[in-house]
Amino acid sequence: MNRFYCAVFAGVLALAAVPAMAEEPPLEIVGMGSFHVGGRLAEITGQPVREITFTPGGTPAKVDPNGRYAVEQMYVQWFRPRAQRGRVPLLLWHGGGLSGVTYETTPDGREGWLNWFLRRGWTVYNSDAVERGRSGWAPPEVWSAPAIHVPIGNPFERFRIGQGEGSYSDDPAKRRVLPGSQFPVEAYDQFPRQLSPRWTTTDEPTIAAYVALVDKVCPCVIVFHSQAGQFGFKVAQARPDKVLALVAVEPAGFGDPAKVDVLKSIPSLMIYGDFIEQDSRWPTIRRNGVAFAERIRAAGGSVDVVDLPAAGIRGNSHMLMMDRNSGDVAQLIQTWLQRKGLWQ
Amino acid sequence: MNRFYCAVFAGVLALAAVPAMAEEPPLEIVGMGSFHVGGRLAEITGQPVREITFTPGGTPAKVDPNGRYAVEQMYVQWFRPRAQRGRVPLLLWHGGGLSGVTYETTPDGREGWLNWFLRRGWTVYNSDAVERGRSGWAPPEVWSAPAIHVPIGNPFERFRIGQGEGSYSDDPAKRRVLPGSQFPVEAYDQFPRQLSPRWTTTDEPTIAAYVALVDKVCPCVIVFHSQAGQFGFKVAQARPDKVLALVAVEPAGFGDPAKVDVLKSIPSLMIYGDFIEQDSRWPTIRRNGVAFAERIRAAGGSVDVVDLPAAGIRGNSHMLMMDRNSGDVAQLIQTWLQRKGLWQ
Repeated sequence: MNRFYCAVFAGVLALAAVPAMAEEPPLEIVGMGSFHVGGRLAEITGQPVREITFTPGGTPAKVDPNGRYAVEQMYVQWFRPRAQRGRVPLLLWHGGGLSGVTYETTPDGREGWLNWFLRRGWTVYNSDAVERGRSGWAPPEVWSAPAIHVPIGNPFERFRIGQGEGSYSDDPAKRRVLPGSQFPVEAYDQFPRQLSPRWTTTDEPTIAAYVALVDKVCPCVIVFHSQAGQFGFKVAQARPDKVLALVAVEPAGFGDPAKVDVLKSIPSLMIYGDFIEQDSRWPTIRRNGVAFAERIRAAGGSVDVVDLPAAGIRGNSHMLMMDRNSGDVAQLIQTWLQRKGLWQ
Repeated sequence: MNRFYCAVFAGVLALAAVPAMAEEPPLEIVGMGSFHVGGRLAEITGQPVREITFTPGGTPAKVDPNGRYAVEQMYVQWFRPRAQRGRVPLLLWHGGGLSGVTYETTPDGREGWLNWFLRRGWTVYNSDAVERGRSGWAPPEVWSAPAIHVPIGNPFERFRIGQGEGSYSDDPAKRRVLPGSQFPVEAYDQFPRQLSPRWTTTDEPTIAAYVALVDKVCPCVIVFHSQAGQFGFKVAQARPDKVLALVAVEPAGFGDPAKVDVLKSIPSLMIYGDFIEQDSRWPTIRRNGVAFAERIRAAGGSVDVVDLPAAGIRGNSHMLMMDRNSGDVAQLIQTWLQRKGLWQ
């Protein structure tokens, strides 16, 4: 069993040994707001003026589609708790095809990581990456590629909730869930309602908007998931002095390998859930992540790679923040951040 | 001057005379979450399987576009204040081409109506209507009409910020703002970043999702803006026992005129801002609203129509909740709700 061979470090098992607080600390939000950051103006010309009746029975309005459009901005919502214990704000960056909703209420109605970290006294910024949710998306004249929509069964098979390809059925009774899964499968059908159409051509503007966010609100800690693996590491490479710690939750992408030395001053934590080995894609994704971590270490940096099962936390899907034991995973992150001196 | 002839009622001027509180009551949120409500599953068949690399350098995934899609659901975020003074929750429904961001921080960084009503002890549900923001949008195989995007100058000219058609310029110094406008024009460029692509074919599913929301969280008070004029009145007509009051803020659409008797037990307030008469479209829109109010009254119902200038509140654009005097308008709504016995 060398499954976790390069991942288990001294102290990692101890992280999980910190018990979850017996009683949840109170939620007390005393400041809240939102803004859009980043983006650019894109010009459209040569189109005919249209007359549009926006509301049935309403008064037609002329719409001249020529002009400048606000595109590639990013929506960010922030919350400030009464008792501030995080030394810097904590930023939550979601994965592909999703939005900041990822960190809100779980599909089965429990509080998500947004509330969890607010209860521990972190000021939290929760964003919708460029193109998704409240960030809006650009006209086809600006983004010519079509958006990708995925059917409701796709995340079930791809996110290690079901037993891979073919495991999803429209009939809930026939879905082949991974034995021991902590995903709240009885509420699975609520999850795909959070899906956001996506593009595969918007990584650069997404990174630019995240850099603009970091310039605006950091120094900070960034917790990022899946597709945001590349965003978290690349943005930290662009603004290493602004990022005090990186928490990569099942990252599916990584930073620039030629610039790993820039990351050596930023302590990083990489977390992987369960069922990796039996999946068709995740062994490769995890191997790429561990290889990136090793490059950072070779450059003199510090990365802790935690395979949750090895730390005694079992059954996690790719959507760890929605799993029944999401609080245990959050506590592991919290304990790690405390040990890095980022919480008081 | 019969400009406000049918709109000024005894008591209306008195509403504005209630002074805004000298000091803002504290913001203290002790509960917060989100969910998606309503929607349906739509099936797509006969499409080829595609292989997509979602993340550069990542591991390709097979995406079978055939299957069922979650469409036409609605995203709702809720907040519960410590001291609950609203007798029922207050629902905020935004206008066309926008999202719940409408009620959050204003373009110039002040607190929006969401925080304003939370500070007065209302539990608030702020939603993104079907197709917009965190509600997602359906694949072209399901919604065949193209989305409508508008350039950044469109709301400037259409929402009574500038002096109508041709008043917008990409050069801020050359924009012709309505004299006396309360819109924070120096921050105008932040506003179009909130725009959401829209369809003109989704009114029925939007109403269905709002009805599902009302079934889930009401009895309640609904504050609705612009395009949501039709949604507010039609949903109240569908669920009259669940709606204790309606606040129509510059409604651009209305309910079913054949069913106004259903609304007679629901006290309603209609609010219009400034510069209506000099606009090319708003005199008609307002006239339609007043005519709908008169139908409700003729059926025995109660509707107060307030033209803000007649109530001493001047300079309001269509985006009243973003104007510099947005607190005065909110206070007028609050005072009206208090008089209806809905706040304690």
